[in-house]
Amino acid sequence: MIDFSFQNPTRIHFGRNALEQLPKEVERYGKRVLLVYGGGSIKRTGVYDAVMQKLGNVNAQVWELAGVQPNPRLSPVREGIEVCRREQIQLVLAVGGGSAIDTAKAIVNGACYEGDVWELYEGKGTNETALPLGVVLTIPAAGSEMSRSSVITREEDLCKRGRNAFTNFPTFSILNPEYSFTLPPYQTACGIVDIMAHMMERYFTMVENVELTDRLIEGALVTVINNAPIVMAKPDDYDARAEITWAGALAHNTLLDTGRVGDWASHKLEHELSALYDIAHGAGLAVMFPAWMKYVLPRGGARKLAQFARRVFAVGEAFATDEEAANEGILRLEAFYRSLGLPTTLGEMGIDGSRIPEMAARAVAMMGGRLGGFVPLDAPMAEEVYRLAL
Amino acid sequence: MIDFSFQNPTRIHFGRNALEQLPKEVERYGKRVLLVYGGGSIKRTGVYDAVMQKLGNVNAQVWELAGVQPNPRLSPVREGIEVCRREQIQLVLAVGGGSAIDTAKAIVNGACYEGDVWELYEGKGTNETALPLGVVLTIPAAGSEMSRSSVITREEDLCKRGRNAFTNFPTFSILNPEYSFTLPPYQTACGIVDIMAHMMERYFTMVENVELTDRLIEGALVTVINNAPIVMAKPDDYDARAEITWAGALAHNTLLDTGRVGDWASHKLEHELSALYDIAHGAGLAVMFPAWMKYVLPRGGARKLAQFARRVFAVGEAFATDEEAANEGILRLEAFYRSLGLPTTLGEMGIDGSRIPEMAARAVAMMGGRLGGFVPLDAPMAEEVYRLAL
Repeated sequence: MIDFSFQNPTRIHFGRNALEQLPKEVERYGKRVLLVYGGGSIKRTGVYDAVMQKLGNVNAQVWELAGVQPNPRLSPVREGIEVCRREQIQLVLAVGGGSAIDTAKAIVNGACYEGDVWELYEGKGTNETALPLGVVLTIPAAGSEMSRSSVITREEDLCKRGRNAFTNFPTFSILNPEYSFTLPPYQTACGIVDIMAHMMERYFTMVENVELTDRLIEGALVTVINNAPIVMAKPDDYDARAEITWAGALAHNTLLDTGRVGDWASHKLEHELSALYDIAHGAGLAVMFPAWMKYVLPRGGARKLAQFARRVFAVGEAFATDEEAANEGILRLEAFYRSLGLPTTLGEMGIDGSRIPEMAARAVAMMGGRLGGFVPLDAPMAEEVYRLAL
Repeated sequence: MIDFSFQNPTRIHFGRNALEQLPKEVERYGKRVLLVYGGGSIKRTGVYDAVMQKLGNVNAQVWELAGVQPNPRLSPVREGIEVCRREQIQLVLAVGGGSAIDTAKAIVNGACYEGDVWELYEGKGTNETALPLGVVLTIPAAGSEMSRSSVITREEDLCKRGRNAFTNFPTFSILNPEYSFTLPPYQTACGIVDIMAHMMERYFTMVENVELTDRLIEGALVTVINNAPIVMAKPDDYDARAEITWAGALAHNTLLDTGRVGDWASHKLEHELSALYDIAHGAGLAVMFPAWMKYVLPRGGARKLAQFARRVFAVGEAFATDEEAANEGILRLEAFYRSLGLPTTLGEMGIDGSRIPEMAARAVAMMGGRLGGFVPLDAPMAEEVYRLAL
C-alpha cells in the first residue's frame, strides 16, 4: 500500500424521498440558482417539474442552462460562467447524468477563476474556491455525482480533457434510483459498463499489498454484475436500481483509489474514440477494456487478471494456470457486456482502423508519452490495443 | 435498501510519511493547540517527540491533557473544556487510540456548548459547531479517527454513554501503521476484534436488498481475518498493519451503514461489561458477539448468519442447511478469536453471573426497553445472552 491522503466532502441524499432534502440545501447556500441540464428527458420524466416545485417551495430564483450534450462541450460552460457572474448565482444545480454534472463542475470552478476556464483543464491554472454545486442524478454511470473529476471537450479540435480537483466534489448530491427507471436499455447498459470500468481502472494496479481495496472493488463489481440482468429485464426494480446507483457513486468517489495507483489506459483510449466518433462512453469502454486486457495479459498482467477472473467471475479450478483463468475471465466479461446488448468490437460500431494511429498518438501525447499505470503503453503499443478491438 | 443521507468530511493522511502533513494542518486551524493523550506509551515509542517536533516546526503553542484512561472518563473532558476556554485553544490534537480521541471529541464539542458537556451525551442538548479536531492514531481499533461516535463514562455511577454527532467527525486524522508496531499482542488482538465488531454490527440487519454494503463488509472482514495472524506473528509487518489500520477506519466511518440499520446489541451488552469490570472493550466483544450470535440464530438469524459463515469464513457445502452453516460460522469466529489469544467466555475473564440482571436491565433501559435491530432484545432476553457467554 502506498501513502495517500483522502477526503470526500460530498453530502449524499439517497432514496425515494431524497429530493425532499433539496429545499433545505438551497436555503443553506442561496436562492439564486442556475439549473444545468441536457435535452428534454428530464421534462418527459417529470424530474424537471419535481425539481422546480421544490425550488419554488423556497422561492428560489432560477436561471436555466439547457441543452447540454453527451460528451459535454466547452461553449455551454462559458455561457454558464457568464450567467453566474452576471446574475450573482449562489448555487449551480445539475440535473441529469455525467454530462450535466461535468458541465456544472466546469462552471462552478470557472466562475471563481479569473482566466479562461479551459486553462483549468489544460493544467495551466488553478482555483482555490468554487461556487456551491448541487446534483440531482438521473443516470447512474459517470460517478461524477461524488467524484472530483470532470471531462470537457473543446469543440474546435475535439480535444477531450479531464480535470481532477478537490473543488470538483459536488457540495451535495441527490440520488433517487427511481429516476433511472425510464432510461432506455442501451443507456442503462452503457452506465453499467462505465461504473464497472471505474472500478476496474482502479483494480488493475501493480501496487502490491492492497487487499482491502481489492476486496472492496471485487464486492462492488459482483454486486453490479448480479443486479445488471435484473434492471435490464425489469427497469423499474427499485432494489436493483438502488444497488447500481450507489455502486456507481462509490466506484468513482476516490475511496477505491486509496493506497494504490490506477491504470486508466482504457479510459484514455476510449476518450479518443468518443471524441472522434461521438459514441457513448460506456459502449466504447465495453470494446476497449477487453482489448486492453488481452494486450496486458501476456505482458505482466496475468496474475491480477486471474485474481479478477476467480473472485469476480468465479472462474474455477478447471482453469488452473493464471493465464487460463485470466483468459476465461476476459471471455466472461465480454459475454457479460454482450448480454447487456452492447458491442465488444469496433467493427460492430462501424469504426474501422483508419484513424488508429491518430487516436493512439493523441491518447499517449496527452499523458506525456506513457499511458496507464498497470502496463505503461507508448503510442505503438496503444495502436496494438486499438487493433485488438477491431 | 432504505433511504439515507451520508457525509464524512474527515481528511485522512495515511502512511509512513503521514505525519509530514501535521504542520500544514496546524497552520490551517491555528497554533494554540491542546494535546490530548493517555499514559506514557506515546513517550516510550517516540510518537510524542515526533508530534512535538512537527508542532515546534510551526511554532505552535502547546497545552497538554495527559493521563486519559481506557474507557475514558468525564472529568478529564471537563478539564480539557476548561483549558480550551481559558486559553482560547484553536485545535485539539488527540494522540493515541479511541480513548484519547473520544475524550478530545467530547472536549471540542463541549467547548462550543454552553451547558454541561454530559448533557450532550444524555441527548439533552446539542451543539452546532465544535473546535477543529486533529488525530494522530496509534491504535487501530475504535475507528474513532474517522467516525461520528464518542463514548464517555461518568465516574460516579459508571454510566457509559455513546454520542453520535456530525461535529464528532475529526477534521483530519493522521494514520501511520508503523505506530501500531509496538502495541502489545493483547492490545493488537483486542483492536482486531473491535474492528470486526464494528463491521458485524452493521452486517447483521433485517433490512433486505443490501447486497453492495453486505459485500463491502464481507470483503473488509476477510481482509482483517487474513492479516490478523500476520501482525500477531510479526508485529512490524507494515503491509498487514496497513490493511488493518485502514480497515479499522472504514469499519466505523458510516459508509458501511448506508441503506441499512445495524444491530449494536453486542456493543451495548459489552459496554455494561466494561463499565462494571473495566475490561478491554475488544476482549469483551470477543465474548459477547459469539454469545449474541448463538442467541439470535434460532430466532430468525439463521439466514444472515449462514451468509456470513459462507462468505466470510468460506463455510462449504458440507454444511448444507442455513442452521448448520451458521453454527459452523460461529465456531470458526470463536476459534479465530482464540487464535488471537483472547477469551471467548466470561468465566475465562473471571466474571461470574452475579451481576447479569443488573447489566441486562441497564443495557436495555438505556435503549428505551429494546436492544438491537436484528433481533430486538428485552431485559430477560439480554440476560440469556449474558448467560450464553458464561
